[in-house]
Amino acid sequence: MSSGPKIVALCGGVGGAKLVLGLDRRFGAGVTAIVNTGDDFEHLGLHISPDVDTVLYTLAELSDPERGWGRADETWNCMKSLSAIGGETWFRLGDRDLAMHIERTRQLRSGISLTEFTASVAKRLGVVTTVVPMSDDPISTVVHTEEGALPFQGYFVGRQCEPVLQRVEFKNAERAQPSRAALAALQDPDLTAIIICPSNPYLSIDPILSVPSMRDAIRSAAAPVVAVSPLIGGKAVKGPTAKIMSELKHDCGPLAIAAHYQDLIDGLVVDYEDRHAAMPVPVRVTATLMQTLQDRERVASECVAFAELLSFEMHKASQRKSTTIVPAKKRSNL
Amino acid sequence: MSSGPKIVALCGGVGGAKLVLGLDRRFGAGVTAIVNTGDDFEHLGLHISPDVDTVLYTLAELSDPERGWGRADETWNCMKSLSAIGGETWFRLGDRDLAMHIERTRQLRSGISLTEFTASVAKRLGVVTTVVPMSDDPISTVVHTEEGALPFQGYFVGRQCEPVLQRVEFKNAERAQPSRAALAALQDPDLTAIIICPSNPYLSIDPILSVPSMRDAIRSAAAPVVAVSPLIGGKAVKGPTAKIMSELKHDCGPLAIAAHYQDLIDGLVVDYEDRHAAMPVPVRVTATLMQTLQDRERVASECVAFAELLSFEMHKASQRKSTTIVPAKKRSNL
Repeated sequence: MSSGPKIVALCGGVGGAKLVLGLDRRFGAGVTAIVNTGDDFEHLGLHISPDVDTVLYTLAELSDPERGWGRADETWNCMKSLSAIGGETWFRLGDRDLAMHIERTRQLRSGISLTEFTASVAKRLGVVTTVVPMSDDPISTVVHTEEGALPFQGYFVGRQCEPVLQRVEFKNAERAQPSRAALAALQDPDLTAIIICPSNPYLSIDPILSVPSMRDAIRSAAAPVVAVSPLIGGKAVKGPTAKIMSELKHDCGPLAIAAHYQDLIDGLVVDYEDRHAAMPVPVRVTATLMQTLQDRERVASECVAFAELLSFEMHKASQRKSTTIVPAKKRSNL
Repeated sequence: MSSGPKIVALCGGVGGAKLVLGLDRRFGAGVTAIVNTGDDFEHLGLHISPDVDTVLYTLAELSDPERGWGRADETWNCMKSLSAIGGETWFRLGDRDLAMHIERTRQLRSGISLTEFTASVAKRLGVVTTVVPMSDDPISTVVHTEEGALPFQGYFVGRQCEPVLQRVEFKNAERAQPSRAALAALQDPDLTAIIICPSNPYLSIDPILSVPSMRDAIRSAAAPVVAVSPLIGGKAVKGPTAKIMSELKHDCGPLAIAAHYQDLIDGLVVDYEDRHAAMPVPVRVTATLMQTLQDRERVASECVAFAELLSFEMHKASQRKSTTIVPAKKRSNL
């Protein structure tokens, strides 16, 4: 058992996985990553879980750092042959990566849950962090755009996020249950921090928060919730976050991120470039660009230290209010 | 339209595909190959049709001549990754080959028949011969051995044909219908020859003949049936034919092959080494080892020439018997 802090991280794919890697390397077995599955879809008859795979590959050091998705040292011979017989190749699956989809599809069909499959693969790949899909129930992110509704991958990969986004829908979320392992991690009374990774808030974090009992479990968790802003200098490091914020008529800055998570977070980590005078939540300012493993570990430590400080201050605040019982952490407005 | 002879070939995988290639190169669009699907099985959630693929790959010049199965210039990265996450790898699927199984599985699930899928892939790959699975209904070859019943691939690949064979069962064959394209080819009044390729009679040809209406259609076809013995000098060129013949207490020679096909064939092609004094059917003796493309084309020509001669002689025999109506081809014992 780990004797270090217990941490839950909510994340999507690439951007979030970087911070999860930092947490994994710093805090090892104490970390649980709850991963977005709103991007999951069936393609070529296979169950694809892009974000879960990105997190697994990142932690197992199998991911391709340049491409940003899929596996390093990948080959594409199946796709080439598929193209030759007229199959669909707009969503590219590498030969090494295919094994994951084939085996997952087989196991899901045989009645094994996505949580169980993910745990068994993580173990096989020597991953220390507990990687948990947000739900074993199917939830589909649908992107409503000026050109109509698009399934997530049709928007993200097929159309390269080009159509103007109007709103995002998470199909079946209201009926879905969080993965039991996710709930258990959030309900741990010894939890030190819940960290919302710098993933796309609208496409990667919102699907996780769209599951009603997930949101409730985060709100009533013992630990403070710290989000890391995905913006640096009003721009997204990667991906369509800034474009989407402008399409949703939000100012592309930390205030909008704080507003987006307003009923959930106890603190926000922002980059030096996004230092802002008046913020509605406690803020930790640091360098958030994560290019090296060292960066990732440093930001991970910063998040946990910030959460620990928030806990300490909340505790002090509740003591000051002496006999009055104050909810452990919420809306204490430090 | 082809103006050359119309030929139907019954075949299994590797050995049979060699002769089909010779027929394809000599007689082009006039050839229909009816291929064994008794080896088909679901593996890793994918529908695998080993013999159909071997024939397609051979005709499209994509097959690996050394390995004897699968594709040339193949990579195995999916299998390596599958092994790393604990998946089954006893039945090896190459990366290029995988595209076929993934796309076939997807299309079959969407309601497309195996015949239609095979035709569309053949067209894409530029295959001229009409390649037809023996049936669109599932038929499973089960090998009963001294160690109990084994599914075909469990016996053939999993156990490398080691268990002593007692009998072979073709599950669901009695209820199955031949592929309509197979029936149409056999019923063509202009058919010149039906050729039983030198595939394993027990494991590759018998499944085709186990479909009742297939056997009937072969019997009542307009053309003579010529089998090519898979033996040379009492030995199989490749595969377990000789081992199985000994386990079934047959002498491993052309007489046993003639006896096996006795109610079906009008002639048997045997190798010089298997020349035999008294045979119960007309025999053509030639060099049947097919190492080069030239060999394959020559044996193909030999089979068709033999069938044409048998037709001619049957026609003469029926004329000699003048007014008496004699069945066009059967049991004329030339």
